[in-house]
Amino acid sequence: MKLKEIGEFGFINRFANTFDGLIKGDELGIGDDCAVLTLNETESYVASTDLLVEDIHFVKGKISARELGAKSLAVNLSDVAAMGGDARFSFLSLGIPPNTDVEFLDEFMAGYSEMSEKYGVPLMGGDTTKSPDKLLINVVAIGQCKKEDIRLRSMAKPGDVICVTGMLGDSAGGLKAILGNIELSDDVNYLINKHHQPVPRLEEGQWLARQAGVHAMMDISDGISSDLMHILKASGVASSLNLSSIPSSDILKQLADENDWNYSDLALSGGEDYELLITVKADDLECIQAEFQREFSKPLYAIGEVLEGAPSVSVQDGEQMSVLHNEGFNHFM
Amino acid sequence: MKLKEIGEFGFINRFANTFDGLIKGDELGIGDDCAVLTLNETESYVASTDLLVEDIHFVKGKISARELGAKSLAVNLSDVAAMGGDARFSFLSLGIPPNTDVEFLDEFMAGYSEMSEKYGVPLMGGDTTKSPDKLLINVVAIGQCKKEDIRLRSMAKPGDVICVTGMLGDSAGGLKAILGNIELSDDVNYLINKHHQPVPRLEEGQWLARQAGVHAMMDISDGISSDLMHILKASGVASSLNLSSIPSSDILKQLADENDWNYSDLALSGGEDYELLITVKADDLECIQAEFQREFSKPLYAIGEVLEGAPSVSVQDGEQMSVLHNEGFNHFM
Repeated sequence: MKLKEIGEFGFINRFANTFDGLIKGDELGIGDDCAVLTLNETESYVASTDLLVEDIHFVKGKISARELGAKSLAVNLSDVAAMGGDARFSFLSLGIPPNTDVEFLDEFMAGYSEMSEKYGVPLMGGDTTKSPDKLLINVVAIGQCKKEDIRLRSMAKPGDVICVTGMLGDSAGGLKAILGNIELSDDVNYLINKHHQPVPRLEEGQWLARQAGVHAMMDISDGISSDLMHILKASGVASSLNLSSIPSSDILKQLADENDWNYSDLALSGGEDYELLITVKADDLECIQAEFQREFSKPLYAIGEVLEGAPSVSVQDGEQMSVLHNEGFNHFM
Repeated sequence: MKLKEIGEFGFINRFANTFDGLIKGDELGIGDDCAVLTLNETESYVASTDLLVEDIHFVKGKISARELGAKSLAVNLSDVAAMGGDARFSFLSLGIPPNTDVEFLDEFMAGYSEMSEKYGVPLMGGDTTKSPDKLLINVVAIGQCKKEDIRLRSMAKPGDVICVTGMLGDSAGGLKAILGNIELSDDVNYLINKHHQPVPRLEEGQWLARQAGVHAMMDISDGISSDLMHILKASGVASSLNLSSIPSSDILKQLADENDWNYSDLALSGGEDYELLITVKADDLECIQAEFQREFSKPLYAIGEVLEGAPSVSVQDGEQMSVLHNEGFNHFM
């Protein structure tokens, strides 16, 4: 049997529970945006890691070295944000082809350092080694949060409203523009920048985690349709999304129109938005939305609701209702 | 300028100090076997990471999947041992070619799990992603130790005796046997097993760290001649090794003789021994050696001494004295 037949999650499921007996107290292992590690009576560390491989996750020449350095850290900080954590440390492993220009690496590290400075998260260590031909990047991010503020995928409750912290689909539109060699314009550059310069929603994540009415939280990396399924499975609930409520930028809609892209598909399944996906107690929604707007000068978008039932994502499009059967992106197909 | 012209440490030196301003209190960043992270008043976490790339660090078919899984974790636990830490958590990122057999991965994870069980260190999270053609393995190990027990490379003092916890060169002999397709025998298998099944010296590291007379400590991964240079540079001292005191197994000497290997070179520069290299206050040496023998039923080998002066490794071979100019293995040549 080949890995591509069972996919990433099929593989992980084969060993995910093996280590449960070794995990202590209120620590938490495989299965959320971050693991939860003991810190002290009131706080925990949260830790996440991502491996980025040249020609799978990025193409040299399509993204600048500086952007790549910053993005490598940002996507890991996004996982810390999804737990409600404050970013504290990072570790960086690089596998580098020997003919790589030092100037490229200097630019990469400059971008990584800028992102580190922005969120006050020092690079504490790592590994540098040879790679035969592809650039390899593994980042670990560690955050710190109050135990009572940690938000897990398993915390969604029927009746909750599903919300997101920003526009969806822009990053996927940017990727389409890059891969399709779409002629550059201010609008096209806007989307490409959304793809190359993701912003980890650390302030938003910490603020949301302090609101008692915020239940489940995760970040949107693979696309909301598959990411939401992680919350639904972990919480044992179903969901319904209202397609017209899913926030998409006018620029994405315009360029989708011009280039014959389906912007709803990009918003639902595109991925790499790195916005936060949360479920909110219905009674608290209005208040949290108003406070969020005051705090961040942008809306918290309500896009659907959590329902009782087996995990599934129904999408309401006007009169029409469809059920998404997207079980998550299979990275090995 | 290409990376291979400046090497791993030339590259790291370009950014190693960039993050100092972000590091708090008694935390410690780049430059030792592990970083040191805040835990509580009396204890710290120590954390290390290693990236292993197929055909650079291992060859599929030469090492079994089970051994590879165990070794991937063991070499990181060795870094925790070198700080005097108790192993607490690991994280594992895998980049996997899609055609990889699930059976291979199951065996890999079985080996990883066995090593995890042996030292009570759960796999807490990770990442699984596609790799174009090479298997990629990044492991993070996190340990815990009393602040007063942490042993750094910078703690060596002139007059200290340099010691190692076990035989050197067996692993490098095993690698030579593998690469040279030496005919298998019990002796050859002994060396190959030393290469494929390294044992992290966690108990020894914690015990040594509790002895006030033990000053600097690190693990031997690149070979003692270059690893010792890290201690000498960090402590601002020189050293002299006594070649006849460096412990090599009779099996290595025998096979070196038969195959025209220089066993001293293998012991000094071979690497992947994963024994601990320490410096001990001369007055305490005899007592610590005796206690170590009682505790672990094996000797602590004294192999040289720390001297005042600029970092260098002199080797005394009978009447002859030579200075090693090995500045560390350049992974990019």
